[in-house]
Amino acid sequence: MFKKEIRVIGIDDSPFNKFKDKKVMVVGVVMRGGSWVDGILSTKADVDGSDSTKKLIAMINKCKFKPQLRCIFLNGIAVGGFNVIDVIELNKKTKLPVVVVIRRNPDIPKIKRTLKKINQNRKISLIEKAGNVVKIGNVYAQLTGIEFEDAVKILKIACTRSLVPEPLRLAHLIASGIVAGESRGRA
Amino acid sequence: MFKKEIRVIGIDDSPFNKFKDKKVMVVGVVMRGGSWVDGILSTKADVDGSDSTKKLIAMINKCKFKPQLRCIFLNGIAVGGFNVIDVIELNKKTKLPVVVVIRRNPDIPKIKRTLKKINQNRKISLIEKAGNVVKIGNVYAQLTGIEFEDAVKILKIACTRSLVPEPLRLAHLIASGIVAGESRGRA
Repeated sequence: MFKKEIRVIGIDDSPFNKFKDKKVMVVGVVMRGGSWVDGILSTKADVDGSDSTKKLIAMINKCKFKPQLRCIFLNGIAVGGFNVIDVIELNKKTKLPVVVVIRRNPDIPKIKRTLKKINQNRKISLIEKAGNVVKIGNVYAQLTGIEFEDAVKILKIACTRSLVPEPLRLAHLIASGIVAGESRGRA
Repeated sequence: MFKKEIRVIGIDDSPFNKFKDKKVMVVGVVMRGGSWVDGILSTKADVDGSDSTKKLIAMINKCKFKPQLRCIFLNGIAVGGFNVIDVIELNKKTKLPVVVVIRRNPDIPKIKRTLKKINQNRKISLIEKAGNVVKIGNVYAQLTGIEFEDAVKILKIACTRSLVPEPLRLAHLIASGIVAGESRGRA
């Protein structure tokens, strides 16, 4: 069983201009369950680069909330376009389960074709390593270091106000509000 | 009477280096009462400058939540050091009541002496124009465009999780988390 107050972090990136921006802002929101915001973290990663895993591990491991954290929610498996996150490595280095939340069933073959075209075969293997996409409630997810049944329970606690975990919804609002001046769309 | 779901905005600035930074980030958090976050706004203002009033008016008036907003909470009367906000002008141009929330009873004479020393007499008059500091619950406040009794009621609705209105607490966490990498201290 999980406590209602379980500490989780939701991570999302900011909007960016793929023709102009070299870096993208990445925001982490630490919450107890899906209600109380404990703190806000941020880092930067290269647009279409390959430093996202390293940056997320550093951001999470050095933060003061680390000893209490129990789960990482990611909004999709990449930040800054094709800066694909190695969720196996993220799980290993933080010792935390990773739940990649995906709103729509992703078109994996299409993503793979694009990555192949731009010669990024290593990123294809990162996506494959992240495991099958499973449906949980109204969202899709890829799970690392956590059983399906436990992911269902944690998502139930964290999705207090919408279909996605509240820390992910807030990370999205913050990242877009800070970079664009006003938050837009939804996580 | 005010609805529990009353739309309010809390505004705070980020930490900055007064010897190095020319601009400070200013974050606005739009909430319904003290629980649901509707959106995040941001703008920038000059450190020790005098553009804060203009910047806040633009940020608030152009945002999509404007028609629903009922009250502005400010964390102190200045952003970016001595970029003092003209609350009378802010109230007039947004047509919204302004509640300046102050954690400790401010040492007004000391602030005035500092402003006089750096030849900023206009800012002294802005502070005077903001009216008397009143005690409401556990915080101090300066009220513009709102009666004391109504301010008490709105603060009661908005202070859901701490002594300060929740949108101010979140604006503080976000502004410091984005600029410093990890949120620190309290609003």
